[in-house]
Amino acid sequence: MGRWEPGARERLEQAAMELFLERGFEQTTVAEIASRAGLTERTFFRYFADKREVLFSGAGELQELFVSAVSATPAATAPMDAVAAALAVVAPFLQERGAFASRRQDVITAHDDLRERELVKLASLASAIAATLRERGVAEPAASLAAEAGIAVFKVAFERWQEAPTDLDFARVIEECLGELKVVTATS
Amino acid sequence: MGRWEPGARERLEQAAMELFLERGFEQTTVAEIASRAGLTERTFFRYFADKREVLFSGAGELQELFVSAVSATPAATAPMDAVAAALAVVAPFLQERGAFASRRQDVITAHDDLRERELVKLASLASAIAATLRERGVAEPAASLAAEAGIAVFKVAFERWQEAPTDLDFARVIEECLGELKVVTATS
Repeated sequence: MGRWEPGARERLEQAAMELFLERGFEQTTVAEIASRAGLTERTFFRYFADKREVLFSGAGELQELFVSAVSATPAATAPMDAVAAALAVVAPFLQERGAFASRRQDVITAHDDLRERELVKLASLASAIAATLRERGVAEPAASLAAEAGIAVFKVAFERWQEAPTDLDFARVIEECLGELKVVTATS
Repeated sequence: MGRWEPGARERLEQAAMELFLERGFEQTTVAEIASRAGLTERTFFRYFADKREVLFSGAGELQELFVSAVSATPAATAPMDAVAAALAVVAPFLQERGAFASRRQDVITAHDDLRERELVKLASLASAIAATLRERGVAEPAASLAAEAGIAVFKVAFERWQEAPTDLDFARVIEECLGELKVVTATS
């Protein structure tokens, strides 16, 4: 078996997700994931530190995507517009990984400690966006509020997208939630 | 020692917070907390299941306060106004416990697992508020967005209040953050 197996990461992700949903997260071993993917444990550990990493290894990439999309907007962009632009960049990225994102969510929802880890991921994401806005000269509390509001929209839109009975465009759900947030906060 | 020691809960909370900050959370034992408070371990366990409970036993009370304050607003109140009214009820409750809230925050910030627990608490709070709004006839995603936006304001305002060099009125900081959120979301 070659050192870099083509598509190994995706095969391991798919196998892990199947097993997590079939048997539960705790009951699944790395050996079983590797075997289901037709790979060795050694190959598994080339891609992931442990089985939890299969669920969270994308967190850094997602944060990088968010932060660089905020940074890519013109300097004069209003903070919430910069966050909205970042959400528009992130949406197709998750849409593309739709089946994985959806099964991943099912696994996470079923386990308290994975849910906690997911909340930490979202909180880190909000902090990173707020820091990026501050670097662009946005004052506090506007920077943190725009970042937290953006993550609130992301969270609510993601749940709606996941629960929808039909195939929805995630970017469209995000846009609707951004519009609704504007309406909701304006009435206060 | 009587079964119900007067002020025992407060003495235990104060002793625990002192020890957590002096020695670290992990290094502190229940026996030491009880001893510092001049009480027995048995008395400690009448009030708290373990040392982590000293930090989180107020979560249920806070959620109850939030939810009942939302419910107490007139039925026709806009969702964000109902959330703002709840924040105005919660603010003096935390202001009164200012020293405890502040030291508690220092302990939590210093420990990853306690921070995770705090994020879970805030996420549960948002879910409870959203559920209360839905029971009052608020549709989704407005209910979840108003609840998440309210918790975002609570979180950002709490940090500002804690970090302020002088004594600030927490209710006033919340009002400012609510106003700022409105401005931030309106520009988008």
